[in-house]
Amino acid sequence: MIVCTTIQELKAHLAQQRKNKPDGVIGIVPTMGFLHEGHASLMKRAREDCNYTVLTIFVNPLQFGPNEDFDRYPRDLERDSALALANGIDLLFAPTVQEMYPTKPLTKVLVSEVTERLCGASRPGHFDGVGTVVSKLLNLVQPDRAYFGMKDAQQVAVIEQMVHDLNMPVRIVRCETVREADGLAMSSRNVYLSADQRKQAVILSETLRAAESWLKQPGMTRLKLSKLIADSIRSVPLAEIDYAELLTYPNLSPIDANTEISALSQTIIIALAVKFGSTRLIDNRLFQLGGGDTNVQNNDEIQTSPGDRHGSEPQLCGQHHH
Amino acid sequence: MIVCTTIQELKAHLAQQRKNKPDGVIGIVPTMGFLHEGHASLMKRAREDCNYTVLTIFVNPLQFGPNEDFDRYPRDLERDSALALANGIDLLFAPTVQEMYPTKPLTKVLVSEVTERLCGASRPGHFDGVGTVVSKLLNLVQPDRAYFGMKDAQQVAVIEQMVHDLNMPVRIVRCETVREADGLAMSSRNVYLSADQRKQAVILSETLRAAESWLKQPGMTRLKLSKLIADSIRSVPLAEIDYAELLTYPNLSPIDANTEISALSQTIIIALAVKFGSTRLIDNRLFQLGGGDTNVQNNDEIQTSPGDRHGSEPQLCGQHHH
Repeated sequence: MIVCTTIQELKAHLAQQRKNKPDGVIGIVPTMGFLHEGHASLMKRAREDCNYTVLTIFVNPLQFGPNEDFDRYPRDLERDSALALANGIDLLFAPTVQEMYPTKPLTKVLVSEVTERLCGASRPGHFDGVGTVVSKLLNLVQPDRAYFGMKDAQQVAVIEQMVHDLNMPVRIVRCETVREADGLAMSSRNVYLSADQRKQAVILSETLRAAESWLKQPGMTRLKLSKLIADSIRSVPLAEIDYAELLTYPNLSPIDANTEISALSQTIIIALAVKFGSTRLIDNRLFQLGGGDTNVQNNDEIQTSPGDRHGSEPQLCGQHHH
Repeated sequence: MIVCTTIQELKAHLAQQRKNKPDGVIGIVPTMGFLHEGHASLMKRAREDCNYTVLTIFVNPLQFGPNEDFDRYPRDLERDSALALANGIDLLFAPTVQEMYPTKPLTKVLVSEVTERLCGASRPGHFDGVGTVVSKLLNLVQPDRAYFGMKDAQQVAVIEQMVHDLNMPVRIVRCETVREADGLAMSSRNVYLSADQRKQAVILSETLRAAESWLKQPGMTRLKLSKLIADSIRSVPLAEIDYAELLTYPNLSPIDANTEISALSQTIIIALAVKFGSTRLIDNRLFQLGGGDTNVQNNDEIQTSPGDRHGSEPQLCGQHHH
């Protein structure tokens, strides 16, 4: 595995690879490092699909707000390198902030509408930073495929929209959220949790699982379901809801309060952001509704419909819990 | 020469070309059509530098304001095709608005600072549209080099900034403004001018030429020069100044009123936008100052310094008047 920190080295290695294998498929797994099993599943999938896989590790200051955890975001390049190697990564690119932003960045890639709710509302500017840095990484690596985890479902929706709108020559591959044994979605931020918080944090995945049966109840409206979800999360004392929303996916449009959920024919998302102390956790689940004949997906199924509006042909890879 | 109007055809032809000539250099000349000698000079230069040249013709609605001339912008694809063929273009891509924007575009590429003055101030949103469509065209064609005319000097500065900030894998090549025999900068909008307006429009290039000697006068300040320039343009009765500015280039930073011009060590631009009736013409000239030892460039010289701050290595191709 090649490890490089400069754009010049990265480009030289990629040029060599392209020369050696002109028809090779190049995959990118963009991350902020402090890798866990969720990242490992992205790397494994990229390795299966591609001839050459690039892992990027970059904690991007542009996507952190002034009061967010940029400085204390966990970093461990040595451990990450070992995990990348173990997962068959060919090239690890870990640039410095100076390397990625050598001059004051004046250009931003902004996506509207899809960014207006959920984390876009809670974290102003966050998705501007995401769109901009993902554009940079895609332009630097010029991959055929890019792998993103569905735990950040809104991020996937934003990137798919950007790729579609700007005709970026890359296929976005959606990969399933990986969870701890008790259901907690894997996240680099889980290390922030105290023992008590960690125990109570399972309420996010439990609520999403419970929602699967609530959805099927006759006469279940969006408003009633919202209330059930919020009450469920508030049942643990350390949880403070940032948002708990039901929206269409990937458009992230709101659903009227009195809409009967089982009558919807779109894919919907239940998306949660919950704070435990100063640690903010997110989780979500997609449900493919049948317009009366409710067909609830669980997390182990492959969801295929959401990206179909786009020419970028996103794919979802299933990833089972461990 | 291949002519195509769909992205699918474009991509198929480019893939074939890349397969036939893996090391070939691909050049793009993005235009809004209604081609003139200025465009011809871009095509010639691209043909000299590259193995395969793509001309794009697309009148981009995103870069026109609501009260601008999108609908009446002149179009003549038949004449343009003949000119492209005569200039050795390999592929002409002329998509419809529907092809370029099949769904409501939610993504914008925005450049700040460099876009705040000149046409950015006069035409709000103009450069957002330019950045977005140029990003799309670059992503579709994936050229090695892209050719732009220096008549739109601010556009060149914006695109260079965008390419630099987003690490776009393309080299921007600056090409000299081409002029009519009397000095009027070639523009598709020149066809709008009445006979009287056409005669008086030469005041733009005459003022820029006169500025070359004004610059050399001892004690010439930015304020005095601004006044001389404005007075010169106002000497013709049909001219109405939109802007007439002296700025640094390519940063487009203002210069203090009392700064002695000959003391500056940067490249400066004198940029003009002047309306004749409802027709708005632009022109500009760059001057490389020596910090006391004024070295005025004329339009036939090759300017090399302005893009040096960027990694994208812009080049300027000289183009003599006809």
